This record gives sequence, structure tokens and C-alpha cells, in this order.
Amino acid sequence: MSGTTVGFVGLGAMGQGMAGSLLRAGYAVRVWNRSPEPVAAMVALGAEAAEGLADVFAADAVVSMLANDDAVERLLLDPVLLAGAAATLHINMATVSVDLAERAEALHTEHGIGYVAAPVLGRPPVAAAGELNILAAGIPAALAAAEPLLAAMGRRVWYFGERPAQANTAKISTNFLLACAIESMAEACSLAEANGVRPTDLIEMLSGTLFPGPICSGYGAMVAERRYEPAGFKLPLGLKDVDLALTAGASARVPLPFGSVLRDAFLDALAHGDGEKDWAAVAAVARRRAGLPA
Amino acid sequence: MSGTTVGFVGLGAMGQGMAGSLLRAGYAVRVWNRSPEPVAAMVALGAEAAEGLADVFAADAVVSMLANDDAVERLLLDPVLLAGAAATLHINMATVSVDLAERAEALHTEHGIGYVAAPVLGRPPVAAAGELNILAAGIPAALAAAEPLLAAMGRRVWYFGERPAQANTAKISTNFLLACAIESMAEACSLAEANGVRPTDLIEMLSGTLFPGPICSGYGAMVAERRYEPAGFKLPLGLKDVDLALTAGASARVPLPFGSVLRDAFLDALAHGDGEKDWAAVAAVARRRAGLPA
Amino acid sequence: MSGTTVGFVGLGAMGQGMAGSLLRAGYAVRVWNRSPEPVAAMVALGAEAAEGLADVFAADAVVSMLANDDAVERLLLDPVLLAGAAATLHINMATVSVDLAERAEALHTEHGIGYVAAPVLGRPPVAAAGELNILAAGIPAALAAAEPLLAAMGRRVWYFGERPAQANTAKISTNFLLACAIESMAEACSLAEANGVRPTDLIEMLSGTLFPGPICSGYGAMVAERRYEPAGFKLPLGLKDVDLALTAGASARVPLPFGSVLRDAFLDALAHGDGEKDWAAVAAVARRRAGLPA
Amino acid sequence: MSGTTVGFVGLGAMGQGMAGSLLRAGYAVRVWNRSPEPVAAMVALGAEAAEGLADVFAADAVVSMLANDDAVERLLLDPVLLAGAAATLHINMATVSVDLAERAEALHTEHGIGYVAAPVLGRPPVAAAGELNILAAGIPAALAAAEPLLAAMGRRVWYFGERPAQANTAKISTNFLLACAIESMAEACSLAEANGVRPTDLIEMLSGTLFPGPICSGYGAMVAERRYEPAGFKLPLGLKDVDLALTAGASARVPLPFGSVLRDAFLDALAHGDGEKDWAAVAAVARRRAGLPA
Repeated sequence: MSGTTVGFVGLGAMGQGMAGSLLRAGYAVRVWNRSPEPVAAMVALGAEAAEGLADVFAADAVVSMLANDDAVERLLLDPVLLAGAAATLHINMATVSVDLAERAEALHTEHGIGYVAAPVLGRPPVAAAGELNILAAGIPAALAAAEPLLAAMGRRVWYFGERPAQANTAKISTNFLLACAIESMAEACSLAEANGVRPTDLIEMLSGTLFPGPICSGYGAMVAERRYEPAGFKLPLGLKDVDLALTAGASARVPLPFGSVLRDAFLDALAHGDGEKDWAAVAAVARRRAGLPA
Repeated sequence: MSGTTVGFVGLGAMGQGMAGSLLRAGYAVRVWNRSPEPVAAMVALGAEAAEGLADVFAADAVVSMLANDDAVERLLLDPVLLAGAAATLHINMATVSVDLAERAEALHTEHGIGYVAAPVLGRPPVAAAGELNILAAGIPAALAAAEPLLAAMGRRVWYFGERPAQANTAKISTNFLLACAIESMAEACSLAEANGVRPTDLIEMLSGTLFPGPICSGYGAMVAERRYEPAGFKLPLGLKDVDLALTAGASARVPLPFGSVLRDAFLDALAHGDGEKDWAAVAAVARRRAGLPA
Repeated sequence: MSGTTVGFVGLGAMGQGMAGSLLRAGYAVRVWNRSPEPVAAMVALGAEAAEGLADVFAADAVVSMLANDDAVERLLLDPVLLAGAAATLHINMATVSVDLAERAEALHTEHGIGYVAAPVLGRPPVAAAGELNILAAGIPAALAAAEPLLAAMGRRVWYFGERPAQANTAKISTNFLLACAIESMAEACSLAEANGVRPTDLIEMLSGTLFPGPICSGYGAMVAERRYEPAGFKLPLGLKDVDLALTAGASARVPLPFGSVLRDAFLDALAHGDGEKDWAAVAAVARRRAGLPA
Repeated sequence: MSGTTVGFVGLGAMGQGMAGSLLRAGYAVRVWNRSPEPVAAMVALGAEAAEGLADVFAADAVVSMLANDDAVERLLLDPVLLAGAAATLHINMATVSVDLAERAEALHTEHGIGYVAAPVLGRPPVAAAGELNILAAGIPAALAAAEPLLAAMGRRVWYFGERPAQANTAKISTNFLLACAIESMAEACSLAEANGVRPTDLIEMLSGTLFPGPICSGYGAMVAERRYEPAGFKLPLGLKDVDLALTAGASARVPLPFGSVLRDAFLDALAHGDGEKDWAAVAAVARRRAGLPA
């Protein structure tokens, strides 16, 4: 790490925590962000402000954490940028589509840059603590080069193969399971309540028996208590992730009936104005279907 | 407990473990079963063989663990039997419908017998160890009377209210969530595999991160490894439980779109001859939909 | 027909029209109904009032048109009644389950009575005009005996085989298709309206092009105009028919995903108090899902 | 028409029939197609071969009938082409997305060209006979200008409003209903067959009673007879149209549960290699779900 310069693109709540972890680990970090405030915040912590994306790609390695396919496509899948890069490694930690991952890999390979997909599990506080779970895939040489950087940002790296898209598939599958879990608990809580059981009693029992862990105790409580604000992860982002799963399914011809139900439920939630709420608000759709009070 | 005689009906794998727990706790247990072998086995452990169901209901309290609504209805919801009972408490630990629970409660109340619904979570070894999680509901006096018996059979009792059907609702909701979890993992594993990710890698990561606990590591592994035999819980029983949820939903007018998908998937599995396999074999349906090898 | 006496059970709106057709064709008709008013009305037209069901089954043939499985089971599947019958033919024209049809056939055969299932298509005015479409099944001898009676009540008889349940299956499949058509038009109209197309314009074009016939012009207009009252066929009856399809599917292990969506939609409609409206009111569910004004 | 020159883009089976109708009506028709053979065929009938798309747009009006959004976008939504056009009217008769229609309208308006959306109902023989049903939308002046051309190609024009996207919405809704009808009949036929009714008997009765018209008699027969070849409309095109409906639904936040089922069924069909068959082959999915022989 000594002497290694890391370019970092995308200083949202997650990106700031991750860049901070790299700084703490001793890396020289050169940051870029669309809006200036987060750049200033990171500079105050010891980072260098990049003059532009070319400056970022002049570093030894680049880590990016952008919001979605569009942002990655527009900012980073730029042949001119990549052709001029000194960096030999780009670790893309965003949740993007399988299709984008494949195109990104091809373009980076063409320009001699190792491309690692490394989407993460964890919210901003976990990112800030350097305790993310990281799902990684890429060719062995690139993964080896990425390993110390990933170690600085996460508590554990899970490997999925040599094709970067494998890590994105794993991440998309994981978020699909989260959405399924929320809808499952929403339907179960509506069923319980309409039959006279307090949803909070149900979730407490489930958390203490078959479903330990943060999903049942966290999302389950939000569902049971109808507490959808403040939003940890907004509903339209949930729909985006469900759509990533459906799209990856369609291109590989994998029907996902639960995914189809989820898509309809998220659309229903948006049609009723819940776009600013946490994606747990899909539970309000289950309640509405049953005529239960909002 | 000293001096208390317990009648016990239903010595399947679960019932034997539960009756054994009562014996170990010092209760005099009078057992009845449709077939004689389990009776002999329990007698060998110190139980008394009942001469008939009337003999069972001559005990101080009755515990029953029958297979389904039909068995309970046919054997125990018998006005003559209940009218002649000395027992003042009946703890029904079977997974039965909300509707049956309500009729059972009414009939027992009519005959002055306290009725507690106490379905359980746990497989036979857990029952044998007296470590079940017990979901209980009933009027306070009956619950108080039941408490020492439940304590002998379980590691913890979760209370859901004064109406016995509340415990059955909680149990039905729990099994519904289990079925949802299996289908969710089945779809996620098909999605992952068709996009080049090994399902076992996915499940290992999930178990180690967001989904700790027995469901992901246990059922998830069965799904990922396509290991549906030997059956811990057979597919037709899974369909029965999904139908219990759908029926409880219908009577309270709660649409359950995930439940509807589950029902169709279980029927598909049965149509393809998987009725002797574990209900995790519903994952074979997800694979077939996607044209993945069985 | 001359000299043939027909016992008739069930004088609802449909039954009155059908019994009237038999009278017009010259049959002596002996009628029975739970409530007396329709009996008086038929007597005024020349029918004879039966003293009881045994009296009905003392006729040469019996035609029944009861509301559902329960009524048929309770009133007609009575071994004592059938054992004492002089009638050698029973034409059951109700929409009942496949399971009931099979049990009814067995019981009638046991007592030497030919059993024909002959459910009908058509509303009360069509029944009154003797213009019903009749879906019939039974053994050839019974069908031959039934033929003149059916000819008196309908404009055409469609034959489905030697097992009575085949006609019930055909009727259940037909009603399933009707429900599917209503939901399809409901979703299409919501899609159209939310994208700026007047649903009435859509339905008018469809009726004039690809979908001639009464379903699109009739139900389509009700959907497009949100006109769900007065009810021609009430929503709970629609759910009953969807359930008949799902049950027939389950016993033959036929998943019906459209049927599952229908069931959830009808429950949603009932949960919102639309039980007195026409089953076209399931369109209100499609609108609610999309946040369109009721 | 006398003196009016019409540029025509897209000589597939539909386009040839439509251009032929314009020739028969006396228009001078200047045709362009990606491949040369259809151009030669039309020239033999009296058309003129355009030298390029600019030559097409040098005519008084342009009619286009391309395969999909991509082709329209690539070939016709070209600012240079439109800026240089002499044509004051473009009638786009392809089945395209709502989104594309809106962008096309904006671009044409910007360049002073009237834009009419006029997708059609009917197969190639109907197009050749000038008997299409045409769904049209556009501003009144453009519609008035388009009217004689549409009259030459169709038997009737159905109007949906002033925004071109309204006609595309109507067409997308219509194809959605077709897909729903096929799936409905597929499920009904599987239900019937598994319960002992011949699907051909069911469809014959339905066609003769509640569902007259080409859909039940045509597609119903294909479903009932499992006759999916030769393909009149290939399965992947069916999926494309279902996706157009789902996309139009998503942008307007209209959940379409039947559409979701359709999408999963079409993917299932493609996963099993039925991509060259008629979209009626989605019925094979319904059969496979039920374990019925292919």
C-alpha cells in the first residue's frame, strides 16, 4: 500500500465511508465527485481532490462507487478516458447490471486495465467502519491486486469467479432475496393481523427462533410497526434492484414469479405516492390489498 | 407435576419426543395412538397405555399431537368424549387450521374443558430433547395450567393471546414464511446459476452475512445442492401448510400473491412426481421453468 | 314427452325459466323449492306443487337447478331419497364441483338412477326463452333419455362425454375463461387510461375487431364505464367459480397462474366491500393497484 | 390522391401489402427497404425505388412500417433526415413503444412534420387486401391529411386522440389482450384435459357460444390441437409485445399481474427452445406445469 495512489470516484454516503477506510489504511486517495461538498469533506480527512476523471485514472488503481448503470456508463465507460489511463486496476463496487458488467469488462480489457467487480453488503455506517462484506469477481491477477484495497474496506471478501459479472449476479441475487424477505414478511404480517395476531408478536418470535439476523429483526420490525421512514433504502431503488434481477433473469431466460409479484407491488407502492419511503413500505401494499388500515 | 396424570394422543415422531419429555419431567403419562408400536415404545419408557380415548380424557390434562385437521376432528372433537372427560385442560399442539381451532375452542368451552393451542417449531430430535419453541394461546387460566407441561416440552413458550386460534395463526404464518424462503432461494439460485454463479457460493455467502440461522444454511444448501432426499418434511405437507395460509387468508380476505405462487409451484412439483421428496424440491420447479438441468 | 312427469328442484331465477320451458313443451312438471313463492308462481303457470322431495323423485325424471355444492349435497345426495325414487333419470343442471359430480354419479348409479350433468350458459332471460346452451355429459342411455328435456330448455346441447363430471369440468373451464376475460380487460383498460386512452374507445374498437361477441361488448363496457351495478352475477359467486377451477386444478395437479391472480383479485375486491357488486367490479382492484380514481 | 407522392419505408410482409394498397388507390409510391428483393417486387407493381431515405422524405408524405423501436430509432429519428424533408406528414404504422412514440412526435414537430401513429390489426393477407383495422392518433390537421392514405390501406380507422402515443397505447393494450386470451385458453385447456375433457370439444363449444370471433376459433384451436407451427406470429415477438405493455405500465405505474404471468410464461417457453414457434406455443408451458404430455 505504501506509495500506492488510489483514485476514487463517487462520494455518496457509501463512497465516503469506503474512501475513508482507504485513507485510514494509509493509501494516498485522489477523490472525484459530481458535487463538490463531499470532495471537501474527504480532503479535510487527507484525500487529494482530483482535477477530473483523467486525473483519477492517472492513479495506480481506481475504485468507483457510483449510483447506477447510467452513471457508470456516462462517466467511466469512456474509451478516451480508459485509453489515457495509467491505472492498471479498476474496482467497480456499484450495484450494476450483468450486462453493464460485461461491457465494462470488455472495454477495460481492451485498454489493458484489470477490471474487478466488487459490490458490497452494508449500509453507510458499516462502510465507514471498514466492515463491509464484499462480493468480488475478476481474473486472478486483478483480484490479487485488488485484495489489499478490498481488505481495507471490508471485513470479508467473498469470491464468485473470474468473470466480474459473477459478483454483480451475486449482489443482484442477494438484493432479490432481501426484497422477497420483505414481501414475505409483509404478507405474513397482514395474514396474522387480519386473523387477530399482533404482527410485532409474530416478528419477535420469528427473530428469536427460525430467522435470527438483521433482516427479520430489522425489516420485520419496520413492517410490523408500519415504520417506513426515515428511509434507509428508498423504494424506487428497491424497484431498480428488482428490475436488475428480472432483466438478468430475462436475458438468461429464468422466470422469477416472486420477482414478478415484487415488481407489481413496488409499482403499486409508487402509484400510491410512497416513493420517498423505505422499500419496507411495500408492506403498505400488502395491507391495502387486504383492506387493512394504512 | 407430582401426581398430575397427562393423557397423550398421537405418538408420531414428534409426539413420542414430547411424551418422553413429559415422562422425564415426572408426569404420569397415559398414551394413545392409532397404531400400537409407538405405544409399546412409550410404555417401555414408563408410560401407561390408555385403553381408549375416554381413558385418555380421564387424566387430569390431555396433550394431543395429531397429523392434521381431519384426525383432530375425527378423534377429538367428539361431544360424547368431551362430555365424559375428567380432564380440565386440553393442549392441542398440532398444526391445524384457524377454523378448526375456533370450533375446537367452542366445543371444549361448552364442556368445561380449558383449550390451549400450542403448535411447535422444531423437528423430532428437538422434540426429543425438550427444546421445542412453543407458540401458545388460550385464556389465562388455561395457559397457567398448561405452563408446566409446556415448560417440560419446550425451551421457550411464545404467547399470542387469549384465543387459541391466534397460536395457530402464528404457526401458519411461520410455515408460510418458511415456504416463501425456500421459493425465494430457489429462484435466486436459478437466477445465479443461469448467470454463471455457483448456487453453493451464493448460499454460503448469504448464510455468512445477511441470513444467518438454520433456514438459509439448511434449506439453502438443499436447494443449492439439489438435495431433496431424504425428506425432512414432505412436499405434500408443505402444500397442506401453504393451503392453510391461503385458507386463513381467504376467510379474512387477505390476498397472498406469494402464497399463490407457492401453491402453483407445489402443484407443479407434485405433477412431476416429487411427492415423496422434501418440500425443498419445489426448487426443481424453479429450475424446470428456466430449462436448467434437473 | 306426452305422459312424462318431470320433478323439478330449485326455482331460482334460472330454475323458473327452465321449468317454464318444460311446461311449454307439454311436460307435467312437479316443482319443489325451499321458499314457497316461486312454487306458487309456477303452479299459476300449470305446474304441480310437490309435497316434498320424495314426491319429486316419484316423477319419471328429475331436473335440478340448485345454487351450489352444499345445496345439492344436503337436499339430493340422500341415500334414502334415492333408494325410494321411481325416477330413472336425474339431470343436474347446477354449476357444481368435479368432486361432487363424481360422488353424485356414484350414488345415483348405486340406486339405479341415470345421472346426467348438464350445466348451462345463459342468464335468466335466456333460460326463460328456452334458449340456453347446455353442456351435457353422462352415459349414452341417460343422455338419450335426457335429450328431449334438454331440447325443451335449450337452443343447443354440447356433449362432453360419458362421465357427468366432464360437463361440470367444461362449465368450470368456461367460467374460468370469463373471469380471465374480465381481469384481462380490467388490466388493459387501466393500462390504457393511465397512458391517456379512453377505456370506452379501446373496448369499442376491440368489440368491433378482434373480440366480437357478448363478453367484450358486455363486460368490457361495464369495466370501461366502471358500471358494476346492478349485479348480473355477484362477485362472491365469481370467487366461488374461480375456486371451483382452482380446486379442480389442484386435484388434477394443474397449476393455474391466471387463476391464482384472479383469486387474489377477488379477495381484494371483497376486502374493499364490493361483495354486492357484479363480478366485473374486480376491475376496481386493477384501478386501485394503479392508483386510478375509483 | 392524384399527384400525391408517398414515400414508403419497410417492405416486410405487412409493408408490401400496405404499399400495394396505396398503388392500387392511385398514389405514386416511392419505396425503400433494407434488403433489395421486396423493392424489386414493388417496382414490378408500379412503385418507384427510392435512392435513399432522404429520397423517401422528399415525397409529399411518408408511411413507415418497420419492425420495432430500434429500427424506427435508427432509420427515421434522424434530425438530419427530418430537417431536410419535404414531406409534411409521416404516418408510422409500426407497433412501437409509448416512449418512442412520444420522442418521435416531438422530433417531427420540431421539424414541422405532422406525425401520425397508426398501428394496425391484421395479418399480411388482410394488409394485401387493404382491409386492415387501423388505430390512429395525431393532431387533427395531420389526421385529416392522413385520412385518404389510411382509407386506402384499411377497412376502418379507429381514432384515439390527438397524441400519437394514444394509438400506440391502444395497439399495445390490444396485443396484451391477445396474449391474455392465449394464456387463458391454455390454462383452461390444461384444466379441462387433466379432468378428462377434450380441449377441442371445449374450444368448439366456446367458439359457438360465448367467444365467437377469430381469437377463440383460431388461437383456441391451435392451443387445443397443440399446433404451434407454422408460426403466424413468433413467440419472441409475443414477448416483445408483452414487454411493451409492461413497460408502458411501469412508466405509468400500472401493475399488470396477468402481464407478469405472461412474461414468465414466455421466458419459460424460450428457455425450452420454442422461439421459432407461434406465440400460441405458450400453451406448452401450461401443459408442462401440469405434467401433461407435450
